[in-house]
Amino acid sequence: MPRFALKVEYDGAPFAGWQAQADQPSVQGAIETALARLDPGFAAGARIAAAGRTDAGVHATGQVAHADLARDWDPFRLAEALNWHLKPAPVAILAAARVDDDFHARFSARERRYTFRLVARRAPLTHGRGQVWQVLNPLDAALMRAGAAHLVGHHDFTTFRSSICQAKSPVKSIDEITIEESPVPHGCEYRFHLRARSFLHNQVRSIVGTLERVGAGSWAPERVRDALAARDRAACGPVCPPQGLYLTGVGYPSDPFRDGPTGR
Amino acid sequence: MPRFALKVEYDGAPFAGWQAQADQPSVQGAIETALARLDPGFAAGARIAAAGRTDAGVHATGQVAHADLARDWDPFRLAEALNWHLKPAPVAILAAARVDDDFHARFSARERRYTFRLVARRAPLTHGRGQVWQVLNPLDAALMRAGAAHLVGHHDFTTFRSSICQAKSPVKSIDEITIEESPVPHGCEYRFHLRARSFLHNQVRSIVGTLERVGAGSWAPERVRDALAARDRAACGPVCPPQGLYLTGVGYPSDPFRDGPTGR
Repeated sequence: MPRFALKVEYDGAPFAGWQAQADQPSVQGAIETALARLDPGFAAGARIAAAGRTDAGVHATGQVAHADLARDWDPFRLAEALNWHLKPAPVAILAAARVDDDFHARFSARERRYTFRLVARRAPLTHGRGQVWQVLNPLDAALMRAGAAHLVGHHDFTTFRSSICQAKSPVKSIDEITIEESPVPHGCEYRFHLRARSFLHNQVRSIVGTLERVGAGSWAPERVRDALAARDRAACGPVCPPQGLYLTGVGYPSDPFRDGPTGR
Repeated sequence: MPRFALKVEYDGAPFAGWQAQADQPSVQGAIETALARLDPGFAAGARIAAAGRTDAGVHATGQVAHADLARDWDPFRLAEALNWHLKPAPVAILAAARVDDDFHARFSARERRYTFRLVARRAPLTHGRGQVWQVLNPLDAALMRAGAAHLVGHHDFTTFRSSICQAKSPVKSIDEITIEESPVPHGCEYRFHLRARSFLHNQVRSIVGTLERVGAGSWAPERVRDALAARDRAACGPVCPPQGLYLTGVGYPSDPFRDGPTGR
C-alpha cells in the first residue's frame, strides 16, 4: 500500500489533544474520519501515526503524520480532498507527499520544533484569545535569555517533565532556545523557539513557565541552573497553559515535502 | 465635566460595527454600557464619539474615542474599571488620558491608519479565521505595489468609495500605501498599510480588493490608474470582505496618550 506523509496545521482549542480518544474530539480522529471518506482501509478502522502527540489545547503549524492508502493518490489531490472533508474543523492538510514504506512520521523524526507565544500586557486580549498565554506583568527578555542558556545542551530534565511522563530516560538534548520579542499594542509578545530531537511530556511548558518567572524578576537566572541540577520536579517553576504552544515543524533525514519524487 | 480620551482595541466579529444601533450589538454600545456602571451621565444615556466609525466585522487596535465623565478619574483606574466591566466582550481599553475640553476624538483627528491583512494560500486557515481575508491564488507583491503607486496622493476617489458614502467630496489625499509581505506555513501574508487624514466609506476595502486583482495577474497595474481616472464606481475591482481590516491608529496634533499631563 502506498504510504503518504501529511503536513498538518490545527487550532488545538476544540480538541482533547492529538491522540484519538473514545467520546472526545481529537485531531487524529478528525483526520481519520476524513480519510475514511476516501479510503476503504480507514473506513474499516486503519490509524495514522504522528511525530508529536500534542496535548489538549496545543496547536500545530507543522505536525507530520503518515497514512497507508489503498490507492496511489496524486498528493495535491489527496490534500485537497482531505481539506474538503475536514471542513469545518480547524484542521488543514498543508501538504501531502508519497514516501517510502520505511518512513515513519514518529520514528523517522530527527528533530521537533516548538514555539510558545506569550503576551505581556495589562489590557485584556481581544484578538488571538486561546492562541497565546497572557501575563499582566512586564517581562525582561535579557533575563529570560540568561535563564534559558542554562537549559540548552544535554541534561537530565527530571525537573522539567511532567510526573506522568512515560519517557524511559529524562536525559535529553535541547539544541536551541531563542526568544523573539515584538511589540503588540500597549504590550509585548515573546516567542520562545525550542528545538530538540525529542521532548519530554510538558517539557516546553515547564521551561517557558519557569522562564516567565525569571522575566518577571521573581527568579534570578541562576535559579534555573539550580533547578535543573536538583533533578526534582518540585524545583520547577509553574507549568504554563497549553494555548500558547505550537508544534511548528518536524525534521527528517530527507524532507518528505521537498525532496521526495512526488512531494510538493 | 472632565473629558477623557480612550484608546480602544476590538475584535469586530461579534459586532454590527462601531456605531450604536437599536437591537444590534455594537462596540460603542458595549463601551457605553461599561461607562454606565461607573458614571451617572452614561447611566442616563450620555454617548461617546470615535475617530472612525468602523463597519460590521472590522477590527481595531488603535481606535480613539472620548467621553465626558462626572468624576476626575485617575486614567489608569478608569481603563482598569472599564476593562473589568467590558468582560467578556472582545473590547479592551488600551489606555485612557485626561484631555482638554476642545479635544474631539473625531474632529481633532489629523490622520487615520488602517491595516488590511490578506493571506494567500491553498489550504484552509485554521488560526485567525475571521481576522484575515484568505485568497487561494498566489499574489505578486511587486505588481500590487505598482498598482498602489497610482493611488497615493490627492485624487478624486469616486471609483473607490461606496455608493452610499455620505462624504461631501470624493477628493481625498492618501499619504501612504505600503505592502508588507511575510511567510505563513505554505502561503504568504500581505499587510496593506494605508494612511490618510480621512477615508471615504469602503475606500480601503475597495482599494485592497482592486490591488488583489492586480496581484493575481487579472489586472495590469495601469488599470488601477485608469479606474481612478474614470471616477466611476463601476470601474472598481471587487470590494474585499471586512474581516481583514484593522483601524490601527489615529493621529492628533498632540498625542493624548503620550503628551498629556495625565496621559499614559
